[in-house]
Amino acid sequence: MTILGVVTEYNPFHNGHLHHLEESRKKAKADLTIAVMSGTFLQRGEPALMPKWERARMALAAGADLVAELPYAFSSQKASTFANGAVSILEALGADYLCFGSEDGEIAPFLRTAEQLKKHEEAYSQRIKEWMKEGMSYPRALSLAFKEVSGEGDGGLADLSKPNNILGFQYISSICEQESRMVPLTIKRTAAGYHDTELPSGRIASATSLRKSIFSGDGLTGIHSYVPPGVYGIMQDWVQSGLPLMNWDRFFSSLQYTVLSMTADELSMIYEVEEGLENRIRTSIRGASSFQEFMERLKTKRYTWTRLQRMCVHVLTRTTKQEMQEAVNRERAPYIRILGMNEAGQRHLAAIKKTSTLPLVVNPRSFNHPALTLDLRAADIYAMGFPGSLRPERLRAEYATPPVRI
Amino acid sequence: MTILGVVTEYNPFHNGHLHHLEESRKKAKADLTIAVMSGTFLQRGEPALMPKWERARMALAAGADLVAELPYAFSSQKASTFANGAVSILEALGADYLCFGSEDGEIAPFLRTAEQLKKHEEAYSQRIKEWMKEGMSYPRALSLAFKEVSGEGDGGLADLSKPNNILGFQYISSICEQESRMVPLTIKRTAAGYHDTELPSGRIASATSLRKSIFSGDGLTGIHSYVPPGVYGIMQDWVQSGLPLMNWDRFFSSLQYTVLSMTADELSMIYEVEEGLENRIRTSIRGASSFQEFMERLKTKRYTWTRLQRMCVHVLTRTTKQEMQEAVNRERAPYIRILGMNEAGQRHLAAIKKTSTLPLVVNPRSFNHPALTLDLRAADIYAMGFPGSLRPERLRAEYATPPVRI
Repeated sequence: MTILGVVTEYNPFHNGHLHHLEESRKKAKADLTIAVMSGTFLQRGEPALMPKWERARMALAAGADLVAELPYAFSSQKASTFANGAVSILEALGADYLCFGSEDGEIAPFLRTAEQLKKHEEAYSQRIKEWMKEGMSYPRALSLAFKEVSGEGDGGLADLSKPNNILGFQYISSICEQESRMVPLTIKRTAAGYHDTELPSGRIASATSLRKSIFSGDGLTGIHSYVPPGVYGIMQDWVQSGLPLMNWDRFFSSLQYTVLSMTADELSMIYEVEEGLENRIRTSIRGASSFQEFMERLKTKRYTWTRLQRMCVHVLTRTTKQEMQEAVNRERAPYIRILGMNEAGQRHLAAIKKTSTLPLVVNPRSFNHPALTLDLRAADIYAMGFPGSLRPERLRAEYATPPVRI
Repeated sequence: MTILGVVTEYNPFHNGHLHHLEESRKKAKADLTIAVMSGTFLQRGEPALMPKWERARMALAAGADLVAELPYAFSSQKASTFANGAVSILEALGADYLCFGSEDGEIAPFLRTAEQLKKHEEAYSQRIKEWMKEGMSYPRALSLAFKEVSGEGDGGLADLSKPNNILGFQYISSICEQESRMVPLTIKRTAAGYHDTELPSGRIASATSLRKSIFSGDGLTGIHSYVPPGVYGIMQDWVQSGLPLMNWDRFFSSLQYTVLSMTADELSMIYEVEEGLENRIRTSIRGASSFQEFMERLKTKRYTWTRLQRMCVHVLTRTTKQEMQEAVNRERAPYIRILGMNEAGQRHLAAIKKTSTLPLVVNPRSFNHPALTLDLRAADIYAMGFPGSLRPERLRAEYATPPVRI
């Protein structure tokens, strides 16, 4: 049996994801597809539009066989840690291929790039450090350092200035580093740019532009043609039950409150609050009436918007540097939580359960790990995005919801 | 010049307070009246209905000449600490008399009681400790222990089972302990009981019943006949400007969020979180959709509702045991912040400024004390009760608002 692994956030699942799933399956000639998916808070430093269980249901509806959660300690992280967590889970679940979407769409340049960087490893990381010391943002330093070590006119390498290429390259690095037996594949991303915020005319739009459309006041109506009908139905049910779609606005009060309640020293102990950012956060939040306004006050050239949003997630969940260090530990996910499966997925799970290198967490109360502690706290905090009357139920959900089965 | 001191919360100022002010002034033959008033969070463990500046304006409108703030470290506290803070401020402001309202209305029984307790001090505190070990609430243990040491049939003592008598007695204890030169006086409280929650038919109702009427949906209309016209005007202006009247409901989300974000260990470091209450708080808050529901889940025989509400205030402001210890220190207020004054009050302030035993805090940014840190944090957290768009202005108010002058 050939098993395909994909790394996802599905926020929300859209036609571009469907395209990627289907093409990846073809490319890998896969019999089974496993998706690793971010849980409550995502790589861009945002709360998930809908809870992980509903997003797992979308993935299953669109053809995934098994959906596992990427723990908080890896999901709200820079690309390398995000990739390390995802790769370690796919490997433990027995995936043969990891297929990612990229702007380049060819795997050879990525492999050549990995080789090239391996050769110049020291010079590369040295340059990144130097650029960052000069106040450059991490992605920009990465891209410049890469240009330097890859040499003038040396063709055939991946273009690491593009966001999906960067992330894809991280998967390959993780596979190498973890000596995973997975084979990396890539699919060319269609039309929609990762950072697009306007809805295009076709049937494929970026998740960013879909979220923008939803929160512009149109709700779900504007996104109808960009998501598979099954997914649209899940979202429609959610909204028609009076449940909210989440964004930072629903958490801004809690963020503001928590910053006001912390001393600068406490704030500086939070993960990703570096180099005096604690004072900038404190000043910026006092004058802001919304998350957007706060972020605009907070933003500097030194840090990307995404990096700062991730930091805000850690402030919101009050995740300290020490807690994160213990949770991430060896840059491998320490357990697997299954969010959903169909029959094929269930059979596969039963088959590999005994030999898997990572423990399966079925009941989170009876498992103990610093990373799980962060997952549970993140889920609690995520419940604060719901109206007060729904919170008791949402606070139980994290413990009481069994994996979604279709 | 004869100076009267009164200890107040004015939440809101009502006809009973007016009666007390006028009668006290007569009794003391006072030329000047100084009110010490709780700031943002009150002795019962509740947020103040309106900010301290507006409540100071009410006091001035009703005849007080000078209003000083009782710092957070003393206002959200058991009666003895509350009294110690208030007495030390009045003493430093040069008051000759402290006149309190009581059910008894005669000062002699209080003085006899103080003498009696002084005599049996050891046995008294021993008995209180014993009763509390057996699971009794503090006020009940106090009352029973007092009955014991005061002896059978020994008449002429104050009835320390009544709430205003208890508080009044604490003022006398504080005066003795601090060797204050203030002379205690008392006025008999009229009709309304301290704990009444229904509006009576006269023109005097308890602050509790006024707040209840306001939040029952009637807004200000129901309380019109129970507050002086000047005060009613201040409240009406407030509400008509679209500003909210505060109660715990406006802070429940923040309270719930903060408990969810804290470990049991962190919670147990909060002031007044004793004897495993941290676990009870964590469990109770997960299932509650409102502050009332949370309190009902939290309540046990061992602790009074008020004691638990005060603890909730400290959880909300994340005030630790250590912070409170440093703030309260020698059970004396460490500074004076003036909330409001008329011309007479201002003249008096100018006259005693140089000789006052406590520093006057004019600009809170240029004064440093653990108690002031708590005041400023409490004020920040209080701003969270306002809608998001008003918060930036409310967060500035604590630093930018000069004393009210009429």
